[in-house]
Amino acid sequence: MTPTERGSLVTFEGIDGCGKTTQINLTCKLLEKCGYQVKMLREPGSTKTAERIRKIVLDRRLTVHPTTELLLYEAARAELTEAEIAPLLKRGVTVLCDRFYDSTTAYQGYGRRLDIKTVRFLHKVAVGEIVPGLTILLDVDLKTAAARRRGNPDRLELQSAAFFNRVRRGFLEIARKERRRVKVVDATQPIEDVFRDVRKYLARKFDLK
Amino acid sequence: MTPTERGSLVTFEGIDGCGKTTQINLTCKLLEKCGYQVKMLREPGSTKTAERIRKIVLDRRLTVHPTTELLLYEAARAELTEAEIAPLLKRGVTVLCDRFYDSTTAYQGYGRRLDIKTVRFLHKVAVGEIVPGLTILLDVDLKTAAARRRGNPDRLELQSAAFFNRVRRGFLEIARKERRRVKVVDATQPIEDVFRDVRKYLARKFDLK
Repeated sequence: MTPTERGSLVTFEGIDGCGKTTQINLTCKLLEKCGYQVKMLREPGSTKTAERIRKIVLDRRLTVHPTTELLLYEAARAELTEAEIAPLLKRGVTVLCDRFYDSTTAYQGYGRRLDIKTVRFLHKVAVGEIVPGLTILLDVDLKTAAARRRGNPDRLELQSAAFFNRVRRGFLEIARKERRRVKVVDATQPIEDVFRDVRKYLARKFDLK
Repeated sequence: MTPTERGSLVTFEGIDGCGKTTQINLTCKLLEKCGYQVKMLREPGSTKTAERIRKIVLDRRLTVHPTTELLLYEAARAELTEAEIAPLLKRGVTVLCDRFYDSTTAYQGYGRRLDIKTVRFLHKVAVGEIVPGLTILLDVDLKTAAARRRGNPDRLELQSAAFFNRVRRGFLEIARKERRRVKVVDATQPIEDVFRDVRKYLARKFDLK
């Protein structure tokens, strides 16, 4: 894809502490250097309404049942898609998203053990026809991820190791089922080596100099 | 049903200003007098998490796209069902609910013109196997309803007359399709006449003295 074509959606996935933020920032810089107009977004959030929803899902003081959690993530996603992602893609902007629907499949589907078919149906309700052109899965073991996390854990980060193991296996299962879209990168490597791998996949979709 | 059996869910539906609150209060008093343990709930809301969601959907300053709105109502419903309705019914309590999933079918399905099949699927996701034993639809024309509404209108109440007409017709359509469960009461009548009709339907399910 050259910088003048229709925008593309690139999503970054993985458990907390896998290094998504760093890799998104590096990707943004690279694509901008190559002439692409780039917008970074995060999920849940990035619009006023979605940030209000984010506050509910991550609030440690609240009880949020698994189905409620699923519906709230999809609500935040529907809002972000309608208000930001769809219009940006139409304008030819490349959108880099920190988490997208694969996170919900992994966390609420595999992690909370909600019905995967229902979860996937809700993705369609929330985002319609929008599918990421490329998804980078930053795979990392739980120990490395935990060591990298900083600050107070939110409601989701407080879950058990068994939960995060199911989430990690869930992500890998998604990648196995959708090999063309989802690329697994070993995120235990040093930052520059991780980005070398990320860049390799970006080069297949973008005109990198 | 006698007061000792498994609890029943009775929902009250209709456009804003149809007189739901008054009729629920009268129903609650009557059933309690007859020996039933009764709990009144409202939607969206009635739990800490659901009230937080309510604040988002009704906030006039926020942009909330129709699909987001749908998912938020279902999220609030999922939380209320899991946290309150299901446990109360198990304990034999009669639950009176000010709005339930028919409101979402009417407002988001018919009013916002979202796909009715998708809306109904989401009800199942949110409430599972729970179905109201009786639904009272308080039907009223838009002029009467508008005259009865007090205070500042919320985000939904600010919609156009065309929207409320679709909602009202949506409610009547639901009642036509589910005659056994949904009973239409002419809510333009004086309060005591409305309650006489409501009572008639209650008498078919409850042991009224």
